[in-house]
This record gives sequence, structure tokens and C-alpha cells, in this order.
Amino acid sequence: DKDMIDRLLQAWRKAKDVTPRDVAFSLRGASANASLRDKKESIELVWTGPSTSLVPVRHTEQVLCEVIDSAKQQLFIVSFVAYQVDSIISALRRATDRKVQIEVLFENSSEHGGRINHDSASALRQLLSKVNIYSWSSGKQSSKDYLGAVHAKCALADGELAFITSANLTKAAMEINMEAGVLVKGGDLPSRLQDHMNALISTKIIEKI
Amino acid sequence: DKDMIDRLLQAWRKAKDVTPRDVAFSLRGASANASLRDKKESIELVWTGPSTSLVPVRHTEQVLCEVIDSAKQQLFIVSFVAYQVDSIISALRRATDRKVQIEVLFENSSEHGGRINHDSASALRQLLSKVNIYSWSSGKQSSKDYLGAVHAKCALADGELAFITSANLTKAAMEINMEAGVLVKGGDLPSRLQDHMNALISTKIIEKI
Repeated sequence: DKDMIDRLLQAWRKAKDVTPRDVAFSLRGASANASLRDKKESIELVWTGPSTSLVPVRHTEQVLCEVIDSAKQQLFIVSFVAYQVDSIISALRRATDRKVQIEVLFENSSEHGGRINHDSASALRQLLSKVNIYSWSSGKQSSKDYLGAVHAKCALADGELAFITSANLTKAAMEINMEAGVLVKGGDLPSRLQDHMNALISTKIIEKI
Repeated sequence: DKDMIDRLLQAWRKAKDVTPRDVAFSLRGASANASLRDKKESIELVWTGPSTSLVPVRHTEQVLCEVIDSAKQQLFIVSFVAYQVDSIISALRRATDRKVQIEVLFENSSEHGGRINHDSASALRQLLSKVNIYSWSSGKQSSKDYLGAVHAKCALADGELAFITSANLTKAAMEINMEAGVLVKGGDLPSRLQDHMNALISTKIIEKI
């Protein structure tokens, strides 16, 4: 910061016609823009696993609950598996109580041609009868060696907040593993990801089950 | 934008002592700050899986190669598994040729008390003899029910670029699955994550193997 002030003073000395008032106005403009930007977009590091006192990081479960609780109209959750994580299920219940439309995309259970045993979709359906559940099946016939899996993990609220992470909706991911993620508030990214998910629905790449 | 201009004009009309020159200087300050910010931090959405023509997204493998190729001094890669992905291994080879220090944190293979069968560490070690490989073992004795896994997936270059994703270093993650990630350039986040990883090393939570 000192370096920036020195550079400002040096530049000012060269520009003889610039008055103190001019500089004051340009600094106020810069500062107003900075606080507008801060409001517009922020990125936070999110982590599960051993912490060090050296670098504070926000916890996965806390951030996921924040995203769910912030939703006013729409929530889109993509996760590989969804075992019972009570705090998340409670947050989802509060969201349905607020009339938030919840869309979830899970990997199909192995009985339905997917790659995991635990039938996440039906487990969640028992808990939340008002959730729209999607699955990715189209194009899976193309390769006989390996079927693509829904391995993305993200939570989106109203195209305003996007949480993108390595963490599944499991107790281990919330409490025991090392997991890394990013919470993006505002800016273009959350709405782009929301648009992308909506485009996957409108092009029938993912379909309601 | 028109709305913002209207609001500016309205506010100006109320502030009688503000000259056109004052407004010009404040706008130049705001604009200089905006371009400084744009240079400072950017976030991009990264995706593997079916794309729609509606929302362009960057591809996982391409971004991971970009991060590796951008590294000048240090590269930190965290991944659950590391099967052969030729483009990534080639990029890592180029990085070692440039004398970039590469640190990798993998989940231990099951033979070493970890949760996966494929011995990623020794497979990569054969390819890249100069890589520092870390493992997370401390504290794993505490729970007998479930051992925490290194499930985070990220790539960090020089504390400047951070790629945080759901994608492992596998062919499926690069080509077939649905995977979501974020590439962060500049700003605080890449250096914070780098500091966090270094803190995990200095506190011996992860150790060189």
C-alpha cells in the first residue's frame, strides 16, 4: 500500500495541472468502485479436514447449509451420493417450507444402471416429497467399457450463490475427509452454472425421474 | 448501465458544487480501479461432460494442463487417484524440465493403509522421479470405523492460479463423467490455499513419503 501511495505521489508531481480536489475525486471514484465490486462478487475457500491455526478456512457443512438457507426461489444440488447428513436434510426441509423449488441431480443407483449401491434418489425422496430429482442417462449407451458418472458436486441458490466442491453429501465428506471447495457469491459464475444446469434439462441430457 | 448513468446524473444534480472536472476525475478513478481488479482476480467455470451450445464452459483437462504449464516455481497437486492421463503426465514432465518444484498429495494406496487399490504414488514416482509425494496419515488412528480420505482435488501454481474441482486425475474424469470445477486466477484465494497446504506440511499433518 505504501508503494502505491508513493507511485501516486510521483505521478501527481509530474502532472502539474492536477489539483488536490482532482485527486480526491479520483480516489473517491476508485474507492466506490472497489466497494461495489466487493459486493458484486466474492470467492471463499471451503475445506473439510484437519485445520491449522495458520490459515483459517470455512467448513464444508456450514457453507452447504448457508447456501441452502440462502435460497429464496430455486436450489440446484448436484452430488454423487447422498447418505443421511442430518444438518443438510434439515436445511433442505426448511427450504421446502419456504416454498423454494429444489432440483437435485444424483448419480443413478446401480439398480437403475448407475454406479453406486445406495439408492440416493429414493432415500431423499422419502424425506422430501417435493424435490425434483433428475438423472443423466442419455448417451450412456455409447460406451460399453465405462458409463460416465455424475461426479460433479455443487449447490446453487437462485443463480446468486454457487458452491463447487469435491465433497459428496456424506458424513465422511462433512467431517472426516480432506475436501476442498469454493463458495462464489455474486458475479457471473453462479448464474452461468445455473444456466448450464437448466440447459442440461432443456436439452434433455438430464431428465426428471 | 443506463440505469447507473441516470443515477449518476440525478446525484450530480443534487450536488451543486461538483464540477464536470470533478466527475471526470472520479470516473477515471473508478475505471482505473475496475481494470486493476479485473487483472487481479478472475474466476472461470470448468466442466467435463455433455455440453450444450447454450452455455460455453471450459474443459477440465485443458484447464489442468494450463495450470501445470503456467507454473514457474511451484506446483501443488492434490488428487484422490492418479491413473495414467497422458496429457497431464506430459505437462508435468514439461514442468520438471522447467525446474518447477512439484508437490503432490495423494490418498495412500490400500497396501499403505489408504482406501484405494491402485498405487498412485508409485505409478507417478516411476514417471517423475523428482516429485515430492506427500501422504496424510497422522490422526488416522483416532477412528477405527472410518479412516479419513484425501478426497480434495486441486492444482495450484505459484500461489497465483488455483483449480478446485470434483475431477480426479483419471481418464473418466477428463473425458466421460460430469465434473464441475473452478479456476481462480489472482486474488487472495490461490495464495491462501497454497499457504494452507504449506501449513499442512509444516505442522506434519501431511508428510513426505
